[in-house]
Amino acid sequence: MDLVVLKFGGTSVADAQRIRRAARRAIQEKLNGNQVVIVVSAMGKTTDKLIDLAKEISSDPPKRELDMLLTTGEQVSISLMAMAINEAGHEAISLTGGQIGLITDSVHTKARIKEINADRIRQELSNGRIVIVAGFQGIAENGEITTLGRGASDTTAAALAAVLQAKRCEIFTDVDGVYTADPRLEPKARKIEQISYDEMLELASQGAGVMHSRAIEFGKKYGVDIHVRSSFTDYPGTLITREVQKMENIVVSGVAVKKELAQFVLIGLPNEPGVAAEIFYHLAKHNIAVDDIIQTADQSGHASTSFTVEKCDLAECKLVLAEIRQQFKLPEVICNNPVAKVSAVGVGMRSHTGVAQKMFKALAEAKININAITTSEIKICCIIDPADADKALRVVHEAFELDKQPAQAG
Amino acid sequence: MDLVVLKFGGTSVADAQRIRRAARRAIQEKLNGNQVVIVVSAMGKTTDKLIDLAKEISSDPPKRELDMLLTTGEQVSISLMAMAINEAGHEAISLTGGQIGLITDSVHTKARIKEINADRIRQELSNGRIVIVAGFQGIAENGEITTLGRGASDTTAAALAAVLQAKRCEIFTDVDGVYTADPRLEPKARKIEQISYDEMLELASQGAGVMHSRAIEFGKKYGVDIHVRSSFTDYPGTLITREVQKMENIVVSGVAVKKELAQFVLIGLPNEPGVAAEIFYHLAKHNIAVDDIIQTADQSGHASTSFTVEKCDLAECKLVLAEIRQQFKLPEVICNNPVAKVSAVGVGMRSHTGVAQKMFKALAEAKININAITTSEIKICCIIDPADADKALRVVHEAFELDKQPAQAG
Repeated sequence: MDLVVLKFGGTSVADAQRIRRAARRAIQEKLNGNQVVIVVSAMGKTTDKLIDLAKEISSDPPKRELDMLLTTGEQVSISLMAMAINEAGHEAISLTGGQIGLITDSVHTKARIKEINADRIRQELSNGRIVIVAGFQGIAENGEITTLGRGASDTTAAALAAVLQAKRCEIFTDVDGVYTADPRLEPKARKIEQISYDEMLELASQGAGVMHSRAIEFGKKYGVDIHVRSSFTDYPGTLITREVQKMENIVVSGVAVKKELAQFVLIGLPNEPGVAAEIFYHLAKHNIAVDDIIQTADQSGHASTSFTVEKCDLAECKLVLAEIRQQFKLPEVICNNPVAKVSAVGVGMRSHTGVAQKMFKALAEAKININAITTSEIKICCIIDPADADKALRVVHEAFELDKQPAQAG
Repeated sequence: MDLVVLKFGGTSVADAQRIRRAARRAIQEKLNGNQVVIVVSAMGKTTDKLIDLAKEISSDPPKRELDMLLTTGEQVSISLMAMAINEAGHEAISLTGGQIGLITDSVHTKARIKEINADRIRQELSNGRIVIVAGFQGIAENGEITTLGRGASDTTAAALAAVLQAKRCEIFTDVDGVYTADPRLEPKARKIEQISYDEMLELASQGAGVMHSRAIEFGKKYGVDIHVRSSFTDYPGTLITREVQKMENIVVSGVAVKKELAQFVLIGLPNEPGVAAEIFYHLAKHNIAVDDIIQTADQSGHASTSFTVEKCDLAECKLVLAEIRQQFKLPEVICNNPVAKVSAVGVGMRSHTGVAQKMFKALAEAKININAITTSEIKICCIIDPADADKALRVVHEAFELDKQPAQAG
């Protein structure tokens, strides 16, 4: 008997009717002879509404209490889903993150999964029940309720699929798959049939909102195929899977844009071993996610370091950098806020030349200034003005002809 | 250092402003040198809204899943209360029923408290924190989330006050105390300054909605004074406390009416030992709360038994009685639905005569027919037509002159 994990996002469980629709899909999988685990997000805009409620009371609520608040959203969804399946004549049971033993570290609002004790799920499955698990939430070893970060119900689903050795992990969402670019910004964007974990990871972390990065990491680490698809149709979506030969032929798989970023530039650092380590140690200690690190040295023995952070970490980052500035007696810490980033991603870059040049040329022809550039083996990122972001996405999309069926580049 | 338990009902935490007001009250208790435990209900009409959501999906949702759903309401309140206290510059921590180790039996939606391990609360208090506990909810020994029944946040508060040997248990609500009758039905009703546990227990179980019966039981058992008062004023409310001599002088302390009842009459039962035990064993097994049991025997060796149940238990009660009817081959099981009950309560009844007669006379003069009568040492109940209920309350209230300051009856 195969085991499948089905994850339904907020829009897929936004009201009673949609919950019933999702329930029917799960029941169909059961009737097809599978064991079924469902992971659900909070209904519709519930999480945003809860955050608004918190903001009415405090501009900076304790993160522990935010987790206490936000985890209620998924708990509502799981109970209603269990009721819907039960009403349709099938047995189901809902379980919270704590009840399935999804143990995390204690970093509230951004906790990481340490282990999952899947005994309870296996027991309920072997009793013939459909098991419904609250996404996004876990429990720390001291019993505190934690959350895994916005959008992390995907991560719950992928992690459960890994632990339970699921045959499939299906992510039902309000879009019908992963696109070569965000279709709201580039109408010519095309649905991707199949994409490697690494490409999807880069696209997700560069701003493609479809999937949560850590979900893909779990998929990659444990070899779980993740199928991202629409909850409103039966069409296949995008399969995120291990890299295969033919993917190499596609130079760029997709482009993404991220807007709510800030860039910090630290000038006049001593160009000595251990300085960068010291700076990023302090940022990591405050759980500030840093990206696009660039360091350059001048002739005078000084170095400059720049990096980007998400808007949500901006205030905390400023505090940390104020201390660092004092410690290293820096003449200046520049904050460019906001900045945007446009990225092109593709495993084919490894074996093709001229990819970066094509991207820079497209931006130049559109008169978009590039503030900074970072690259990896399969990605090129340009930091630009947020006013140019949407245009940048479109010109890069066009330069790599992503609206056309994948070219068999040689 | 004294410990106080403050309980805020749904209307007292209905929005951000009211949560802040409740937070200020708790902080004031802290500043007065007390250790403070807060128990909160779900915000405003949250519980009703969640039940409506469940009903959209299922007419008869599994009780386990209802508990999973409804406990989210209090979890939202505790986190927001913690944020409000924190925002005001004081330390607070919110805890769920599971986190404080409030262990219950496994009877979902009507669980009873088995024990409370207050170590976590004591530890947080000794760290100088205000502790905020989710009312209404607990956890069964198998880790399942349970609830204690509608309105049971009072019970959580009283139980905590008992376990923590609190100096005071203050119940903040949307009324300013316990009245001689529901002021919405009898505008002449008067606030009671002090009432015994037993009288309050009878009034609560006979339909006075102010307090949850089990809360008063806890108060009585552990000698905790319970102060019911308005969260919107600083005036004293009603003190529920042990019986003292002067209470004896008051014949009737209050009257109450209960409307959503059904009365069952079982006719033709064998008048033999064990029959009643058998019937009520089956009802208890289904956790159906039964009241106003009357049994009469005729000359032919047969007995009739009647009793009332709450509307919410009606459907299940009918199923159980259908089985009982078959088992005892009863000619008839009559269901009078709906019926109402008007009750007069007072410890003074024990030592005064003519009380019942005065009540029956008042009802008779108002041309209200009495369907059945039950009495206890401190209570007289009459089953009547629901159409007469409000009028019955008023005439009984008037007959005992409850609008006047307590008469020193001799």
